[in-house]
Amino acid sequence: MRSDPNRLRSALLALSLGIFSSTAFADTPEKKEWAVSHFTLENGMEVVVIPDGRAPITTHMVWYKVGSADEPPGKSGIAHFFEHLMFKGTSNHKAGEFDHAIAEIGGNNNAFTSYDYTAYFETVPSDALESMMGYEADRMRNLVLNDEVVATERDVVLEERRSRIDNDPSALLDEEVSATLWQNQPYRIPVIGWMQEMEELNRKDAREFYDRYYTPNNAVLVVASDLDAETVKAMAERTYGKIERGPDLPARVRPVEPEQNTKRTVTLTDERVSVPSLSSQWVVPSYNTAKPGEAEALDLLSEILGGGLRSRLYQELVVKQGIAASAGASYNGTMLDATSFTVYGTPRGEATLEQVEQAINKQIERIAKDGVTDDELEKAKKRFVRATIFARDRQISMANMYGSALATGATVQDLQEWPDRIGKVTAEEVRAAAVRYLQPSISTTGYLLPTMKAGN
Amino acid sequence: MRSDPNRLRSALLALSLGIFSSTAFADTPEKKEWAVSHFTLENGMEVVVIPDGRAPITTHMVWYKVGSADEPPGKSGIAHFFEHLMFKGTSNHKAGEFDHAIAEIGGNNNAFTSYDYTAYFETVPSDALESMMGYEADRMRNLVLNDEVVATERDVVLEERRSRIDNDPSALLDEEVSATLWQNQPYRIPVIGWMQEMEELNRKDAREFYDRYYTPNNAVLVVASDLDAETVKAMAERTYGKIERGPDLPARVRPVEPEQNTKRTVTLTDERVSVPSLSSQWVVPSYNTAKPGEAEALDLLSEILGGGLRSRLYQELVVKQGIAASAGASYNGTMLDATSFTVYGTPRGEATLEQVEQAINKQIERIAKDGVTDDELEKAKKRFVRATIFARDRQISMANMYGSALATGATVQDLQEWPDRIGKVTAEEVRAAAVRYLQPSISTTGYLLPTMKAGN
Repeated sequence: MRSDPNRLRSALLALSLGIFSSTAFADTPEKKEWAVSHFTLENGMEVVVIPDGRAPITTHMVWYKVGSADEPPGKSGIAHFFEHLMFKGTSNHKAGEFDHAIAEIGGNNNAFTSYDYTAYFETVPSDALESMMGYEADRMRNLVLNDEVVATERDVVLEERRSRIDNDPSALLDEEVSATLWQNQPYRIPVIGWMQEMEELNRKDAREFYDRYYTPNNAVLVVASDLDAETVKAMAERTYGKIERGPDLPARVRPVEPEQNTKRTVTLTDERVSVPSLSSQWVVPSYNTAKPGEAEALDLLSEILGGGLRSRLYQELVVKQGIAASAGASYNGTMLDATSFTVYGTPRGEATLEQVEQAINKQIERIAKDGVTDDELEKAKKRFVRATIFARDRQISMANMYGSALATGATVQDLQEWPDRIGKVTAEEVRAAAVRYLQPSISTTGYLLPTMKAGN
Repeated sequence: MRSDPNRLRSALLALSLGIFSSTAFADTPEKKEWAVSHFTLENGMEVVVIPDGRAPITTHMVWYKVGSADEPPGKSGIAHFFEHLMFKGTSNHKAGEFDHAIAEIGGNNNAFTSYDYTAYFETVPSDALESMMGYEADRMRNLVLNDEVVATERDVVLEERRSRIDNDPSALLDEEVSATLWQNQPYRIPVIGWMQEMEELNRKDAREFYDRYYTPNNAVLVVASDLDAETVKAMAERTYGKIERGPDLPARVRPVEPEQNTKRTVTLTDERVSVPSLSSQWVVPSYNTAKPGEAEALDLLSEILGGGLRSRLYQELVVKQGIAASAGASYNGTMLDATSFTVYGTPRGEATLEQVEQAINKQIERIAKDGVTDDELEKAKKRFVRATIFARDRQISMANMYGSALATGATVQDLQEWPDRIGKVTAEEVRAAAVRYLQPSISTTGYLLPTMKAGN
């Protein structure tokens, strides 16, 4: 939506920094006192109700199981563009009416688009929940899509691309690194779209996209609230329940990545860059594609290798050696298809990018050779479980966890069993994940360089 | 077809070495004595008849305007796989009958698949032409596609991929370089297909592909023969003319490439490599996408820079400096979408790959800075025109020229005017093409390295 220029970016950042993954898949030992309800309406709409009795505040989210990776060839950007169009008028409410109703009661709302899903949310006083459901159900099917609306909003997303991507060397580099890492799988295409294709998006594309994907049986409703599940269910039936089921969609089977045999680099040199940086990526399984335990091992590997101030990369490169201003790793396991594992670093002082890269690779090799310690492993596990508890402090975090997991192939049960599965990962499994997936000779590395140091 | 394991490879080599481009677009000053006929059958099948009265021999080709770049997402390899299936039985002829008939009269036949087209040809005594047309028209619509045929031939193409690509480090590298150069346009997908997708190709995929693309209105018949055009036309009407027109296909509009902002490298290190080599590529316009004169300038640039023994790269790197065992450039302009311009080299003796790369870049920079000489330009133009005349010496070369051009958006008139357009290119236009397209800081380079020299 127009009013928040950081919306797309935060969604992308959340993904790239692994916020979803490290806090994903919640539930805790005291499971019974904190029971998540899960049911399906007659028209196929899945509903999750997360109890949160602290205050009469409710977060209401609708997740559509469609993202940029589901776009037809040549139509990149349509998923995100369509998210914008959802803030226009419907046959029942003029454009702006929904936003205005939320602002009036002191709530807030927003939306975001990613590779695998598009989500809309409102946080409001709980007595406004049914009204929110009414608005949200209305725009699921009654959007007014005419040429004027489409043309106006297309200019907005084009400008969004110019300001966020084309004017930002690091964003441009990220795009080309992704398209170099992914040679077949659709994650190679940027969520916001390629400029030349965004320019051609039209009313017909929007209409087809809407009719195909914006249906109750392709949506997950997530409500985190002090209201009980029965009350929420009754409201959902009175609002969303009235919408007719849409046509069944085929399984979300997308092109997959061939085996990588090469080391790839992508270098962007630009005068706007002041500090050089690098990041290396590998294709790895996601929770949805991994063999049992493998995604959990990758999550822990990422945490131990580069998950924060206690991680090996930070401790070695930043604290001990002092050659890096930053260094870390991330793994985003909450994806429908194979995903990426990333390590990154920025040199400090006289240190070169090459030194930082070698030092990062050395830490990877150490884990591949000697594994991780039991102490590191236990602490990493505890940090994960703790993060899922902290996540409860924000309704939107909890709702994000459930929504993103359910939109990428997981079940509520998968989420609830996640802490147990994390608990079972052995040090040897972490080492094996590093050996198998993080091969420095088969990687994709992006270098961001200032113009003056082009020959560095 | 199974009997000739070099079929696909030769088609690909022809493309990558620019044979089609440097000999493409023929006709000569003595146009009237050598008139190519061009007409369309009532069912929409385009026909080109090229006179060649030297002997009672005829080359008969059918070009389908479908190649690997037209494949649906996730179905890579179907175009080439289908080419194999075309050698199976029809409802009128058992598998092998067609091949046998050709062998009996001392003819030869084959087929090839590329990004933009699939072509089938027979060279036979001219009195067998109508019989060839009968067979070819028959398999255009009457192929028997059952599960057994599909499964058997799928094993053949899978084995083809294993032996030609997966067992050949340079082929593997080429694949990943292409997929790194092309980040959106379908030329990034290998013609033979990605293994994991080829394994899943089935009868339904084959049937849909056949019904969609194998129709007279999606085909070009090219006949090079001592028979006159009227005779050929009458035969074509009696054979192909009987086939019903297929459904109209939408325009061949494919995803196009975004602007490249980075320098990309792809390195394959393998113990089977004995001599290192490199090649750099750039995305450039094809004859079908270029502004007037630009593709012609790129053709001449490629010829002057690295088109053979007289080229700058060869003379400088191989002859004068003695640092390279080979060095050259190529431009394949006969493509439907934007295409690539390539420079390549292999070090000799003590010289390193880095020295060769720097020397190649220096030659590009020299042209970008100082341009080419009038003498170089005139000689390059003459070599091109001469090549189109030499091409007449082989019926298949002439037929390839017309077929590939017509299948990638050119007209017979375009071909006939090509020598004039080449003649008009100025030295400044050649220099401008180098400046605009061959930027060493925005390129995609593949390195093939022996394992021992990994750190080279």
